[in-house]
Amino acid sequence: MRRAVVLPDNGAMHPSPILHCNRCGAAVVQRVPEGDSHPRAVCPACTHIQYENPRNIVGTLPVWDGRVLLCRRAIEPRYGLWTLPAGFMELGETTDQGALRETREEAGVDVELEGLYCVANVRPVSQVYLLYRARIVQPSWQPGIETLEAALFAPDQVPWDQIAFRTVHETLRRYFAQSADGRFTLQTFDVD
Amino acid sequence: MRRAVVLPDNGAMHPSPILHCNRCGAAVVQRVPEGDSHPRAVCPACTHIQYENPRNIVGTLPVWDGRVLLCRRAIEPRYGLWTLPAGFMELGETTDQGALRETREEAGVDVELEGLYCVANVRPVSQVYLLYRARIVQPSWQPGIETLEAALFAPDQVPWDQIAFRTVHETLRRYFAQSADGRFTLQTFDVD
Repeated sequence: MRRAVVLPDNGAMHPSPILHCNRCGAAVVQRVPEGDSHPRAVCPACTHIQYENPRNIVGTLPVWDGRVLLCRRAIEPRYGLWTLPAGFMELGETTDQGALRETREEAGVDVELEGLYCVANVRPVSQVYLLYRARIVQPSWQPGIETLEAALFAPDQVPWDQIAFRTVHETLRRYFAQSADGRFTLQTFDVD
Repeated sequence: MRRAVVLPDNGAMHPSPILHCNRCGAAVVQRVPEGDSHPRAVCPACTHIQYENPRNIVGTLPVWDGRVLLCRRAIEPRYGLWTLPAGFMELGETTDQGALRETREEAGVDVELEGLYCVANVRPVSQVYLLYRARIVQPSWQPGIETLEAALFAPDQVPWDQIAFRTVHETLRRYFAQSADGRFTLQTFDVD
């Protein structure tokens, strides 16, 4: 859960420019450190280097009786549109733990993970989605404050034109295509 | 490539404590922002929030004729030990692109990716490994400055007690176990 920041309309949470050293507070310079290949925010005062790296979005496809639980967003961006329970992976947790945490926080549903289903890159915003198939243990849920409502959808019920993110749209499309014979294989794709 | 920092012996590159705002330079406070669930480094002067998230290590298992190309480290930690070409994913690249870049930088070998093979969590240091199977296009390589030498190893030739990281050890063990019949499936595991 990370709700204090209103994201821009494209769903981006791109790191903002680093202007100061987060160790000593001095103004940084952008340069390629010795032995490195990329420009970094280097502190001329204390020599600390601030690295920025892509972030993982972890979450699940919670399934009950062939239907997937979607959450209608109570927050920007994409307020009112539907998505899978997912969010930024936190320090000190595994991808599995993060996926379960986000599912609990956003959908308020108890699930058991059934395997990693999708690894998707959203390069323009330096994000990697890692989404798991998950079995809903009991068909009841209590969405968190960032969710207006949650509901189960069969493929022909999904509001395809009201899905919040292209990554989620593509994951759902692939999931339902494979669910016909129940043979799920890892999906890897890029969304630009 | 990120070579300016000597890592501690456990291979950790854990984010250092955030003491100052990287937007305005003021001293931060650690608190849970409104609507959030985790403590963050919040700037009392400009309200900017600095998030820290896990980092991805991307790389490959470069294969030629059933043997895997390993690189002997010319840098700390684990100087002199063997590893797979891999490193921190950079902003603005996909996991595939990062894996290819690291393979080029560290092993100096031309490969074609054959699919994601391993997603491994190293929770104590908040890292996620994403390693791809890769076909070596031509059996020649020119290791970069962070590699002492590179060499192909069949399973019975691997220096199992001189592998730099447990994640790499476990990935190689699983790879060679599956290579017997050539049916590779995604490996997901945690290393603590």
